[in-house]
Amino acid sequence: MSDQFNQAKKNVSKLTQDPGNDVQLKMYSLYKQVLAQELPNNKVKEGHTSDSGDFEYILVTQDGGLKTVTLNRPTKYNAINSKMYRELITALKQAGQDDSVVTLITGAGQYFCSGNDLTSSLNIPPEEREKLALKRNELMREFVSTFIDFPKPIVAAVNGPAIGISVTLLALLDMVYASDRATFHTPFMTLGLCPEACSSYLFPKIMGHAKANEVLLAGRKLNAVEACNCGLVTEVFPQAEFEKEVNKRMKHLTGLPPKSLALSKQLCRSAEKDKLHDVNNKECDVIAERSRSEESAQAVIAFMQRKAKM
Amino acid sequence: MSDQFNQAKKNVSKLTQDPGNDVQLKMYSLYKQVLAQELPNNKVKEGHTSDSGDFEYILVTQDGGLKTVTLNRPTKYNAINSKMYRELITALKQAGQDDSVVTLITGAGQYFCSGNDLTSSLNIPPEEREKLALKRNELMREFVSTFIDFPKPIVAAVNGPAIGISVTLLALLDMVYASDRATFHTPFMTLGLCPEACSSYLFPKIMGHAKANEVLLAGRKLNAVEACNCGLVTEVFPQAEFEKEVNKRMKHLTGLPPKSLALSKQLCRSAEKDKLHDVNNKECDVIAERSRSEESAQAVIAFMQRKAKM
Amino acid sequence: MSDQFNQAKKNVSKLTQDPGNDVQLKMYSLYKQVLAQELPNNKVKEGHTSDSGDFEYILVTQDGGLKTVTLNRPTKYNAINSKMYRELITALKQAGQDDSVVTLITGAGQYFCSGNDLTSSLNIPPEEREKLALKRNELMREFVSTFIDFPKPIVAAVNGPAIGISVTLLALLDMVYASDRATFHTPFMTLGLCPEACSSYLFPKIMGHAKANEVLLAGRKLNAVEACNCGLVTEVFPQAEFEKEVNKRMKHLTGLPPKSLALSKQLCRSAEKDKLHDVNNKECDVIAERSRSEESAQAVIAFMQRKAKM
Repeated sequence: MSDQFNQAKKNVSKLTQDPGNDVQLKMYSLYKQVLAQELPNNKVKEGHTSDSGDFEYILVTQDGGLKTVTLNRPTKYNAINSKMYRELITALKQAGQDDSVVTLITGAGQYFCSGNDLTSSLNIPPEEREKLALKRNELMREFVSTFIDFPKPIVAAVNGPAIGISVTLLALLDMVYASDRATFHTPFMTLGLCPEACSSYLFPKIMGHAKANEVLLAGRKLNAVEACNCGLVTEVFPQAEFEKEVNKRMKHLTGLPPKSLALSKQLCRSAEKDKLHDVNNKECDVIAERSRSEESAQAVIAFMQRKAKM
Repeated sequence: MSDQFNQAKKNVSKLTQDPGNDVQLKMYSLYKQVLAQELPNNKVKEGHTSDSGDFEYILVTQDGGLKTVTLNRPTKYNAINSKMYRELITALKQAGQDDSVVTLITGAGQYFCSGNDLTSSLNIPPEEREKLALKRNELMREFVSTFIDFPKPIVAAVNGPAIGISVTLLALLDMVYASDRATFHTPFMTLGLCPEACSSYLFPKIMGHAKANEVLLAGRKLNAVEACNCGLVTEVFPQAEFEKEVNKRMKHLTGLPPKSLALSKQLCRSAEKDKLHDVNNKECDVIAERSRSEESAQAVIAFMQRKAKM
Repeated sequence: MSDQFNQAKKNVSKLTQDPGNDVQLKMYSLYKQVLAQELPNNKVKEGHTSDSGDFEYILVTQDGGLKTVTLNRPTKYNAINSKMYRELITALKQAGQDDSVVTLITGAGQYFCSGNDLTSSLNIPPEEREKLALKRNELMREFVSTFIDFPKPIVAAVNGPAIGISVTLLALLDMVYASDRATFHTPFMTLGLCPEACSSYLFPKIMGHAKANEVLLAGRKLNAVEACNCGLVTEVFPQAEFEKEVNKRMKHLTGLPPKSLALSKQLCRSAEKDKLHDVNNKECDVIAERSRSEESAQAVIAFMQRKAKM
């Protein structure tokens, strides 16, 4: 574990009072790193170079009809900060309009994505934090809307552990391939937050309330086979064959008539598009309230204190 | 089998004409007992004492954030009569507003619940029966509404066989744990009735129409693993470990931030709340028609006659 | 393979330009035959004679409460042409109003149904083809509407391979029994078309988007067990016991109170009836555009050329 985190642990274990919003934000960002560091084997695959000079945190490539968007911040387990959200929105808006047929989202390194990253908020002076929270909330709303409105087939290759919004987003994608190393974890309750990315509506729709709430409320981490059995994942492949199998399927898919694919995907989502935008708005409103709540602050601190006592 | 039932069997086997509404109601109540008596091992667990002097048929306890509502009429296999419906509504309305975090519903004795009990109607004079039927229908509508509107996580521990409304209600709960002794049976068609508790909408949503109709129309009884595979049940445990495993999960759940849990549960249901109230109203209207229909009367008699010939 | 097809293959392999609408329609009809001919063991069961002089391509019989509608064009793998669509609409409208309790749809011979058959369009002069396309589209819309509005339980016995609309329609039926020889294939994208029969809405609802799109977009052919696991099929039986097991279930179902069955089936569909009609209209509009598109024409030719090179 990082020295920064060890120091924070020591400080936290002495806390008897609410340490304030400053500490809370720092804690939250550290918490995400703890979650990710508990994952095995954090070796970053070497040799990734971005073909696209426009983006800092994602890598966008195109090969024939296949647009590949790689979450490319492996030292942070591909956690998504504000700039990365904006880059993803930009890349998807381009992919929706250009001549690509299918978009594939995957992660660089051993992880798919460790979720929302709030570290970038840490250097903001307290008086500007309320404004920042509103801005981030708007950003999240737009990010999720971009997926709801995406006009072509969009697929995930979940190459490793997925946390938070990188799990909930999967329900807005059209197909999801998972390595057998992938896990799916949404610890919203532990942080005093709530489900997002339309998962409050789509997870129960996909797997029924009894299974959805085990994930969304009780925070149970699913392995790849469990995620496949409950309908969140299309197919699971052994890690050694993951890339090959996904490539094969992408080659088949991008070889199909592009307009038929796009129109069919739109048909499959159109009956619920308005509802999904409503759900996204409602979820963002609750998240806005939650993220500023005393309960959420206390939840994060309680988590850190439990860790510190270990 | 009880002497009362054996006597009824003899009488019924001689019937050539519609025995009238009086007999029908009596038959129906006996039918429910037959269903339950066919279940194995009807030994009632001893030693249950109610902490709550207010209720006759349910037991309500609170331990930390956990409110437990026990269907406590084990000699009748926890069949729900009018008073018990009212007690459940009262207990849930209290639980929705007090400081409890999670509500758990379970059954006393070897059964979870044998469903609707109409025995209480038997002593009503015929001229008041129409009024009573309307009253019961209103009661059912309110009972189901209470679950639709319940504002916090609500969980079932299905400790044994479940019949009728105790099965359909499960789709309105947030998580459902089942003992491997549990079974799930909705013999609505055999009685000339129809699905209730929003199951006509939620069962197809959870498991697809092909599976839902096998249960709701064809009346196939599911075992615990089947109910889990089709998404009605969250997890199944061996009977010997059932209580321990459920307690462990309830301890985890009640330790999570209460407001996040409540708001998240509300999010997961909010997109469909109006629709669920509509469905409940439609179902209650059809039940009202069905329960007074000649077809339903004949169906119950036919069932009894088949039994009598055995 | 037929001489007609072999001749077409030779011609197609020489094509360098769009062969025009004429050729396209011919190709399409041949394509459907190719799909079906690739299926194993096309031996037609002998001895079927229609009890119903009114129909040419279907066989309608009634035994007690059970109405059986058999797709009866086994030499064409039960492909549905315009006349057969009209016969099915007529038969279903009658079944919805007469004294039958349950309707069972099955296929004559070794196949359930090879989908839409456009061969009947081939003899139409080009100048009337636009009008014909509109007429066929209206026919399809009415055909699907008839299933949406069907007021009683309707069941499929999928006795062998099912293709195209005979797969998508299953989601509008109440129960689906499948022989272990049955397969489920919707090659819409290969033909530049799109999903129909409300499958764009119902398939994601039944099995989640991740699984539905594997079928509807990627065109993966499911075997009977896979179709059962994802909720499209109620139960699978070994071919040798298929007829016996289906008969047993039909006997049970038709013995239940008819009004309760009908009202319960209507309840299970009523909450979505308007939505299903909307979806049907939207799908038909997209199909109308697709079937006249250059992309679809090219897709069919490309398929034929791939075949011709083998």
